[in-house]
Amino acid sequence: MNARFYAPAARPGTLVSLPDDEARHLTRVLRLRVGDPIAVFDGLGAEFDASVEHVTGDRVDIRIGDARAAAAEPRVAITLAQAVLKGDKMDDVVRDAVMMGVTAIQPIVTSRTEVSRATLERAHRRERWQRIAVASVKQCGRALLPPILEPLEAEMLPQAISARQLPVPAFMLVEPSASAHASALRDVEPLVPREATIVVGPEGGWTPEEIEAASGTLRPLTMSARTIRADAMAIVAIAALLTKWNEL
Amino acid sequence: MNARFYAPAARPGTLVSLPDDEARHLTRVLRLRVGDPIAVFDGLGAEFDASVEHVTGDRVDIRIGDARAAAAEPRVAITLAQAVLKGDKMDDVVRDAVMMGVTAIQPIVTSRTEVSRATLERAHRRERWQRIAVASVKQCGRALLPPILEPLEAEMLPQAISARQLPVPAFMLVEPSASAHASALRDVEPLVPREATIVVGPEGGWTPEEIEAASGTLRPLTMSARTIRADAMAIVAIAALLTKWNEL
Repeated sequence: MNARFYAPAARPGTLVSLPDDEARHLTRVLRLRVGDPIAVFDGLGAEFDASVEHVTGDRVDIRIGDARAAAAEPRVAITLAQAVLKGDKMDDVVRDAVMMGVTAIQPIVTSRTEVSRATLERAHRRERWQRIAVASVKQCGRALLPPILEPLEAEMLPQAISARQLPVPAFMLVEPSASAHASALRDVEPLVPREATIVVGPEGGWTPEEIEAASGTLRPLTMSARTIRADAMAIVAIAALLTKWNEL
Repeated sequence: MNARFYAPAARPGTLVSLPDDEARHLTRVLRLRVGDPIAVFDGLGAEFDASVEHVTGDRVDIRIGDARAAAAEPRVAITLAQAVLKGDKMDDVVRDAVMMGVTAIQPIVTSRTEVSRATLERAHRRERWQRIAVASVKQCGRALLPPILEPLEAEMLPQAISARQLPVPAFMLVEPSASAHASALRDVEPLVPREATIVVGPEGGWTPEEIEAASGTLRPLTMSARTIRADAMAIVAIAALLTKWNEL
């Protein structure tokens, strides 16, 4: 299979320049040359045959050819709202969630999250996660690039859901001991919704206040009788819900 | 919650010594003392209250108390037959599979696996994976410790399934392009079996010969329209099948 690149403005028949990261990957890592056949995706769900037309230093122009099939998308558009995890764990969650087919990732700063939104911004974490999302899209065969949304405070979650800034139904993953009102996976209706939000907490879990504030707007959901690690909860919950909805 | 330790011979009312690793964890990491209350599990599914009775150097004797509830086990006993992955990735798969509730892990050496059974043996990899399984059981709240079975060559898989050395139904995860006869997840019957084997290949995938040899004995199964990384396939497949069977 030809190498795949992210070309945001790709339209059949046009000549476009690859973004810098992609151009470097093409010339320096894969060492492709003028005339080599490649595939590109536009990040919005379309994929095309293409070929390298000019290479000048780090600039790569490509000629876009016919549309071709990318990996199928689930019928449900899932936003993963994930509490920012420690160290590299958030990177892994972004990579895995993109591979599993989410359409957007909303980082959340909770009471028990150890970094602030200001620190995330200074460290350019959002840009980093977006690059990881691009790499994961390339690897898993999707043509849709999930955006990394601007980090949100956990206390703003109910309002974001009410305002449909994040889609409903919104499932908030909780420990079985944390909520008397939580549904189990078997209680989730098998009819696939058009969209959904899956909200996953940090290593230390949600505070009782966060769960209380969310109740009524978000639907508390427990995932397993075993304790699932915070950094594994997103992939497990996405796999389970997509299975429930016959969309994995 | 009191700290949990692995005490293989635990029976109510008896005095038992902790295994060396567990004794070190109790004295050096958690710095517990005589009289401190703990919980222990026997690795076979039973869990007990206990208390520290003697500490002599690195030896710890504990008094076993009443039985207590551990995390519930799925009704289906799943053996994960996992092709050995590169570097630390196999460690992560063992940790995750134990957390998800498998009852045994069968390492597989395939045509595209870069280490031999002899190398695995010399490097004491099986002992290492067993220690990782113990750590994962402690973390996820289970009282059942999945054994790490002796590594098996992929070519022996059909025979191991036929001889019921590995349980049926046996699902072999394959790429959609690798088999014309593969089932999708939606084709799997929702009735939970008593036991099952989930067979996951290496980074480079199965060879056509391995898939051909397995057909008839193992049931080829595709997991997603997106390409799932080899080191993520086990957790995704276990989550999906347990959801299908209403056992997550």
